[in-house]
Amino acid sequence: MAEQPSSEKRIVAAGRHLNFVVRNGWEFVERSRISGIVVVVGTTRHGCLVLVSQWREPVQAWVVELPAGLAGDVAGLEREELVAAAHRELLEETGFRAATMEPLVSGPPSPGISNEVVTFFRARGLVRVTPGGGEGDEKTRAHAVPLSGLSEWLETVQAQKGMLVDPKVYAAAYLVRREMDEWMYE
Amino acid sequence: MAEQPSSEKRIVAAGRHLNFVVRNGWEFVERSRISGIVVVVGTTRHGCLVLVSQWREPVQAWVVELPAGLAGDVAGLEREELVAAAHRELLEETGFRAATMEPLVSGPPSPGISNEVVTFFRARGLVRVTPGGGEGDEKTRAHAVPLSGLSEWLETVQAQKGMLVDPKVYAAAYLVRREMDEWMYE
Repeated sequence: MAEQPSSEKRIVAAGRHLNFVVRNGWEFVERSRISGIVVVVGTTRHGCLVLVSQWREPVQAWVVELPAGLAGDVAGLEREELVAAAHRELLEETGFRAATMEPLVSGPPSPGISNEVVTFFRARGLVRVTPGGGEGDEKTRAHAVPLSGLSEWLETVQAQKGMLVDPKVYAAAYLVRREMDEWMYE
Repeated sequence: MAEQPSSEKRIVAAGRHLNFVVRNGWEFVERSRISGIVVVVGTTRHGCLVLVSQWREPVQAWVVELPAGLAGDVAGLEREELVAAAHRELLEETGFRAATMEPLVSGPPSPGISNEVVTFFRARGLVRVTPGGGEGDEKTRAHAVPLSGLSEWLETVQAQKGMLVDPKVYAAAYLVRREMDEWMYE
């Protein structure tokens, strides 16, 4: 379980947002100029999980995802805390403001091809205060989906609208479900 | 919800395994020469979820993941079916053979930076038949973790061994849990 020897990384191509790099023979991408990535597991007082859908050019489809975004990529907010980024992204993308926001778990969603590590924040007491819809050229649509019917809703948007579902949505459902179990057995 | 206009993609850099491309102003990576990606949600007859840990250079850490792999990347097996790839990867990485293997859900784990879409397969009746450990320069270690203690196990390997956890592991826990609920309410 010892760490492997670390050699210098080589930037093969530098894009506007991503660098394509090689280190120890591994090819992967890294984001330039960010300090973290946040995803938000947010529920309303009525038992709904708040999701977004947006066009994702890499897969050429609308994708259902957790509200998410980058910390440190906004001019003037380079030192933004992750928790502040989670509040900001939730509000920008969905129009919901959270009463509380706490870190839950973190991990790399594609550790074979990217150095990204996302932090899941648990947002409670969501109330809609603006229409949402994203900032700038980012166009998102918000969905408040009852947790009790989540699987059926995800199947429907895939089957009827041709959308894709980011697997982190299922991870969020587990994390919320786990809390409910903890309450039951306390 | 109309699809966006599609323009030609431009390959900025072509690596051995990944291409760094731009299309409609979006930068992302795509894998060359594969036909699909499979991840395996496999349980033993004793209620354990089978996971692997491996060194992931992009994040410079050992990562706990579902057994997973690429279809179409093995010479002579370019037309391999996804289900066959799922059986093969499970056996290679963990030494477990599955009695049954069925597709569950699929989706893009990092749709902002990659065109990858992974298909989750549900493997049941796992029995260990070889030591496992991966093929070639891929070194993996298998773990059979009781589902009832999954959260605690994941917290322990992160806190005590500095490992990271791929969020797809939580997604798998939800998908297995969902089945148990279906049985209960049938």
